Amino acid sequence: MSDKTRIRRLPERAVTDVEVIHAILDEGFVCHAAYVVDDRPVVIPTLYARDGDRILLHGSNSMGLARAVRSGSPLSVAVTLVDGLVVARSAFNSSANYRSVVVHGLGKILEGDEKAAGLDIVIDKVLPGRRPDLRPSTDTEVAQTSVIELSLDEVSAKVRSGGPSDDPEDMELTIWAGVVPLRLEPGEPIAAENLVPGLEIPDYLRPYRR
Amino acid sequence: MSDKTRIRRLPERAVTDVEVIHAILDEGFVCHAAYVVDDRPVVIPTLYARDGDRILLHGSNSMGLARAVRSGSPLSVAVTLVDGLVVARSAFNSSANYRSVVVHGLGKILEGDEKAAGLDIVIDKVLPGRRPDLRPSTDTEVAQTSVIELSLDEVSAKVRSGGPSDDPEDMELTIWAGVVPLRLEPGEPIAAENLVPGLEIPDYLRPYRR
Repeated sequence: MSDKTRIRRLPERAVTDVEVIHAILDEGFVCHAAYVVDDRPVVIPTLYARDGDRILLHGSNSMGLARAVRSGSPLSVAVTLVDGLVVARSAFNSSANYRSVVVHGLGKILEGDEKAAGLDIVIDKVLPGRRPDLRPSTDTEVAQTSVIELSLDEVSAKVRSGGPSDDPEDMELTIWAGVVPLRLEPGEPIAAENLVPGLEIPDYLRPYRR
Repeated sequence: MSDKTRIRRLPERAVTDVEVIHAILDEGFVCHAAYVVDDRPVVIPTLYARDGDRILLHGSNSMGLARAVRSGSPLSVAVTLVDGLVVARSAFNSSANYRSVVVHGLGKILEGDEKAAGLDIVIDKVLPGRRPDLRPSTDTEVAQTSVIELSLDEVSAKVRSGGPSDDPEDMELTIWAGVVPLRLEPGEPIAAENLVPGLEIPDYLRPYRR
């Protein structure tokens, strides 16, 4: 095996480069948002989108997250992209490759035009190009949805990439070491069972076609 | 396209079946753990394994999560498997397919033999079959690691699967609807650059080979 097919050690590191942080937030679309209720933490997965120096969390208006923001709970929101399993020569040095951003702060529930614009941003993020096709949202639907803005003022990020970081004295061991890459891969789009006949998979889903 | 290749509506639902909950926890290996520090939530990604009616969170002994457990903070731990993008005829009914478990409770920092056994469980979970190959952990390494036990007494789970749940009045719209499946897929294992010559990819990594 040539050196080109082998993977170098690049240890875990804190990241402060705003472009790297934005790229991580832009690649993800599911975040884990934590809030506090009666001194206890609650964490839930939800959809989000980055827009400039803020993220917009999308959810039901009745969910605990929106209630917690209304009652003043700070938030902690994590976006984690899992890139691989790091298979080292020892358990201690085995790890995962990942890119992770955590945002802290007070969320703001968007209303009115800000909310409508925020919803469009989330829709455009999750499936770029699809929004012009969609049946427009009704007022009732918008009322049932919440969009929570969280600024990217207080952000930490960590990235671990590359091969295992084994101890120097372990390098001669006859134990295989390396990385199993992992990636969230799309499959071929599957049409709904009751689709109007003749509709083809639209162009904006082409990136997902195999 | 025949009906067999089309996807039926199966709306989001709360799940209480313990076998389904265990299956979700067994498929994942990264969780998001939330705790409280100074009345603020903190959420971080970390590795975990399920063992019977508990999960074991793995991390550095110096990390905030272990400190928070020691100081009595309750935990909220989410495991989320993303299965697809649900592409509906309206933005409101568009969603994601996912399987998610959230566990609440007081964590317990394992020590001594319980900790050693817990570490083995996590190692066996992340890469089954690999442990006998590994250079055994040193006392120093074990001391730098923490294993936090959280019982599955207080668990909630939600699953969304199947096609879009469009409104009846939207069914005649000439808008493509369906699902883009998503799956965390392994790539071909990549050897470390400084591997002892002649080592082949071991059998326990075969499931990851393409």
